[in-house]
Amino acid sequence: MYKNNDTIIALATSSGMGAVAVIRLSGKESINIVNRFFRSKYKSKDLNAVKSHTIHLGNIVEKERLIDEVLVSVFRDPNSYTGENVIEISCHGSVYIQQEILQLFLKNNVRHADAGEFTLRAFVNGKMDLSQAEAVADLIASDSKASHQIAMQQMRGGFSNEIALLREQLLNFASLIELELDFSEEDVEFADRKQFQELIHQIRKVLKNLIDSFAVGNVLKNGIPVAIVGEPNVGKSTLLNALLNEEKAIVSHIPGTTRDAIEDELIIEGVAYRFIDTAGIRETDDHIESIGIKKTFENIEKAQLVLHLIESPSASGVFPKGEEIKLLKSKYPNKKVLTIVNKVDLLSEEEISILKSNYSNLLFLSAKNKTGIDNLIESLTNLANTGILSNNQTIVSNSRHFESLNNALKSLNEVQKGIDDNISSDLFAIDIREALFHLGLITGEITTDDLLGNIFANFCIGK
Amino acid sequence: MYKNNDTIIALATSSGMGAVAVIRLSGKESINIVNRFFRSKYKSKDLNAVKSHTIHLGNIVEKERLIDEVLVSVFRDPNSYTGENVIEISCHGSVYIQQEILQLFLKNNVRHADAGEFTLRAFVNGKMDLSQAEAVADLIASDSKASHQIAMQQMRGGFSNEIALLREQLLNFASLIELELDFSEEDVEFADRKQFQELIHQIRKVLKNLIDSFAVGNVLKNGIPVAIVGEPNVGKSTLLNALLNEEKAIVSHIPGTTRDAIEDELIIEGVAYRFIDTAGIRETDDHIESIGIKKTFENIEKAQLVLHLIESPSASGVFPKGEEIKLLKSKYPNKKVLTIVNKVDLLSEEEISILKSNYSNLLFLSAKNKTGIDNLIESLTNLANTGILSNNQTIVSNSRHFESLNNALKSLNEVQKGIDDNISSDLFAIDIREALFHLGLITGEITTDDLLGNIFANFCIGK
Repeated sequence: MYKNNDTIIALATSSGMGAVAVIRLSGKESINIVNRFFRSKYKSKDLNAVKSHTIHLGNIVEKERLIDEVLVSVFRDPNSYTGENVIEISCHGSVYIQQEILQLFLKNNVRHADAGEFTLRAFVNGKMDLSQAEAVADLIASDSKASHQIAMQQMRGGFSNEIALLREQLLNFASLIELELDFSEEDVEFADRKQFQELIHQIRKVLKNLIDSFAVGNVLKNGIPVAIVGEPNVGKSTLLNALLNEEKAIVSHIPGTTRDAIEDELIIEGVAYRFIDTAGIRETDDHIESIGIKKTFENIEKAQLVLHLIESPSASGVFPKGEEIKLLKSKYPNKKVLTIVNKVDLLSEEEISILKSNYSNLLFLSAKNKTGIDNLIESLTNLANTGILSNNQTIVSNSRHFESLNNALKSLNEVQKGIDDNISSDLFAIDIREALFHLGLITGEITTDDLLGNIFANFCIGK
Repeated sequence: MYKNNDTIIALATSSGMGAVAVIRLSGKESINIVNRFFRSKYKSKDLNAVKSHTIHLGNIVEKERLIDEVLVSVFRDPNSYTGENVIEISCHGSVYIQQEILQLFLKNNVRHADAGEFTLRAFVNGKMDLSQAEAVADLIASDSKASHQIAMQQMRGGFSNEIALLREQLLNFASLIELELDFSEEDVEFADRKQFQELIHQIRKVLKNLIDSFAVGNVLKNGIPVAIVGEPNVGKSTLLNALLNEEKAIVSHIPGTTRDAIEDELIIEGVAYRFIDTAGIRETDDHIESIGIKKTFENIEKAQLVLHLIESPSASGVFPKGEEIKLLKSKYPNKKVLTIVNKVDLLSEEEISILKSNYSNLLFLSAKNKTGIDNLIESLTNLANTGILSNNQTIVSNSRHFESLNNALKSLNEVQKGIDDNISSDLFAIDIREALFHLGLITGEITTDDLLGNIFANFCIGK
């Protein structure tokens, strides 16, 4: 899928009008090609002769027609993002001009880059391993402190360096063991069984920890699923709006991100939450009604937190939703549930104190009047942070890595079993190979066109 | 409005997610401030010590937190866009990361740039005159070959160089004439009257040409107004859609530009057209109906071209809209009208030839079947190009310039009158001052905070 001699081009900045836009070219001929259409502003300048990492003011011209006054940045092989010669053209951000420049080069032996092709080239040229390349896409898509932190950790090498190192050690043992097979009639052992066992033990431990981290990583990357349980009109959407408008709650400097696209995704104190609206709950014999309630229970199962929203009718000491609280507790003893009494303004002091004495840990607020929202945010943040975000823990958030780690662990468990049962090494050599294969898939030491195609197709164009 | 010591920051690229985003800082302290949060990738590097126009790979860090791996471009005063020290940070294009970097610097003695403030600084620091600064905004907004060409011409100096030169000569004469006033009792003439007359003549000629060019410039910048005259259901919107879908007609590489925002603006062969939908026309005595028809006539008045769209019912040799054709011709003898017979597929060869013999210059097409669209595009382009786009003509497209040119000409006409009437120079000295003032407003040799405020408020943030 990677044609080494092509020069590729793409708009690197967000599409649409801006003050400036950046167009990127990569390939052996990129500097040479741009040079043909570049006229330096002050004195004649040959881009082929300038130093790497320098910037040059001039015009992009097609025959006599001036397309734009631009800044051209020159990066020379291998000191560039892709590891090839790279040119970045910073032009005026008119969509018309962007397209004129792209079209100019597309007519001159440059082709449009595929999605992720710049990063693919960086991987192929050894500028980063596959897991780091994947982190680039995650980084660009990151929309919260948590997802940013995970992507950044992964891009800096994260666990893939460790995996690569362990894999190399395992590879050495594999070679020795396969050498033994060649001498099988002589019954020699080149590979030290004790060291080998220790290595297998160590790798399995690392893999287990990484696999365990995925549940957390997945949540941090995609948002913590929160089920809001409550009858219609209890004020669920008013509550979400109150959260959305509470500037302290929402990272206020992220306007117009995915939280608009994915309905009810909110970012609170740097952590993303995906709010799932569900109906109220009760035990029922009614078949029709039970279908709806089954759905509610499914959503609660999937959620990591439950916001249980109720209201108490005024002028009544009775608390009609007490059954719901009990039901949630008995059905989900280990679920984190936050019971919220909305419309607190309709309750008297006395009613509130009766409720407090009957039920522990109630949170009182008025979504409409925006009172008590701060407390809710604090409770949410406390619940979310418990054990989720710790700075130095390595976290896997990529489901492809998760799958490879699982497969590698499965193979190594077989190897361990073979060692435990003291069976002949030729019987588990194949499992070692399997493990090596799966570990290699993570870092990209083993790749297939299909694999690369799948990974990079999810990138944006221009990266 | 311009505070010299501030360091300003803004996102320079289009908002939203991209592969990369560029954040720009300008001000005396910009390099120093960025240096405090920049850790070079390979060896410790002091941005204060690096050369201008160089690029540096490294991390932006806040305390120990890594925000992003970035490329930092350094431009030193005066060799930068603004004429000040400038830093451009090219970061991963996540909205979250963009905002984190902006916030980092906003917390550290940098303030957010106002709209157009980078260009304002470029103007204040003598990097460009005011008319060139205005062209930057036009260039960014340009969405067609024509508007691009005008903006580019203006940005390169265009007519403002000539205006500045003529103004300087006029200023010299003004000084001499005012000197005469000081010596008025002695009746001396420092200013050579013949040379002075020649200069006034020349400036008036230049101004007249520029003023005349505005009608064309305005059309090219904002699109040629085209009235589509036709009864409901004659196929007006089908025709527009056919034009829109005809790849040869629309500059196909401008997806999602203003033509989506301004309904029915199409760019055909690099020229923008604004299509105004109007009803059919007839002379009428009915009061209510005449209101609608009056509106139609107003739109036709404003339009530079008229597309007159009619259909002929099948199975009839009679041409019911012949009256419309005659009416248009008699009412607007000088208007460019293109009469189009739609639904040509419903007409027999015989009917077509009858129509052709009765009326000249009919254009037959079927908007629905997309036949004949090519011919329409050719006719449109021919009509539009007649005298509009010539490469070397200087064209004024900015209404502020148009106004100043008009005011300057008015004052100079008074001066000319004074000279013709042989009146004393103290009586037209004030008119010379007026002319100097208005000419100075164009290039920015004379500015007011209000004027600058109005101009730069229309810029996008980040430029």
